[in-house]
Amino acid sequence: MTVTPEIESVDTRDRLIEGAARLLHTQAYRGVGVKALCEAAGVRKGSFYHFFASKEDLTLAALDRSWERFRAEVVDPAVTEAPDAESRNQAIKDACLDRSTHDTDLSHPHVCIFGRLAASITESEPLLRARLAEIFTEWAELLGGGVAGWSALADIIGRLVLAFSVEVVEA
Amino acid sequence: MTVTPEIESVDTRDRLIEGAARLLHTQAYRGVGVKALCEAAGVRKGSFYHFFASKEDLTLAALDRSWERFRAEVVDPAVTEAPDAESRNQAIKDACLDRSTHDTDLSHPHVCIFGRLAASITESEPLLRARLAEIFTEWAELLGGGVAGWSALADIIGRLVLAFSVEVVEA
Repeated sequence: MTVTPEIESVDTRDRLIEGAARLLHTQAYRGVGVKALCEAAGVRKGSFYHFFASKEDLTLAALDRSWERFRAEVVDPAVTEAPDAESRNQAIKDACLDRSTHDTDLSHPHVCIFGRLAASITESEPLLRARLAEIFTEWAELLGGGVAGWSALADIIGRLVLAFSVEVVEA
Repeated sequence: MTVTPEIESVDTRDRLIEGAARLLHTQAYRGVGVKALCEAAGVRKGSFYHFFASKEDLTLAALDRSWERFRAEVVDPAVTEAPDAESRNQAIKDACLDRSTHDTDLSHPHVCIFGRLAASITESEPLLRARLAEIFTEWAELLGGGVAGWSALADIIGRLVLAFSVEVVEA
């Protein structure tokens, strides 16, 4: 099969995004550099800036992809299929916590990227911070909105972050 | 006043701990190096290893101090003074969220260090991970223990992490 340059280019960009999602799933934002992002994708460093303007730019793409995937695979099914709010939230929590034990498995939707990124970004990454705020706001809406939606989301994110260090969080 | 070497030594160690607590309050663990820890404390890099074996060693001391202070200033008063579990948890949440807006003010008890560290450490920092697990377990006990204690703590940590990116979390 002949690979046309266009397809190769799409594939390289895609591998960078998948590699970034995987790395940022297990590592703090500041610990990941462009070099590591290229290595994770098997891409030469010289090619990086052909696809992304910066580490933050690639991270935004990885964040969007992680959210699309997590929303489609976990949140939307829970919202439409669970019989009530309690079992809906429980289904999402179970998915999050189960995922956190499969850090390096790309077939999982990488929910950890949200908790890890939210905790590691600072005022120096305004675009990432703003995009995370949008995702969390959308997520809280999907969980019923208002006080109930934010409470459910806080419970999910809190358990996720606790599970990074604590073996068993009673639930 | 003459400063004896012993007192100077205690003071230097103390400044390193306070500086680390301040830095790790606003920055991810991996983004902070020994050089930055020395600069924050006004200590020459050559002196660092006289006091601490590694960055992780100093971070453990900063974590212990932050927890002692936060427990004494926020958790213990809430546990003894609040009329019921709901107002106790609310008092701790209010303290956490208020603190997250005063990132660089050392007079605050630096609760953020717990959420930030929990989200940024990985399997590579087993001592830190274990110490955080102990602190969270103690904290959950103070919040009533069992399912109720962990739920209250998850809610607190979740809101704290959300507040790093979201301006207004409805509560």
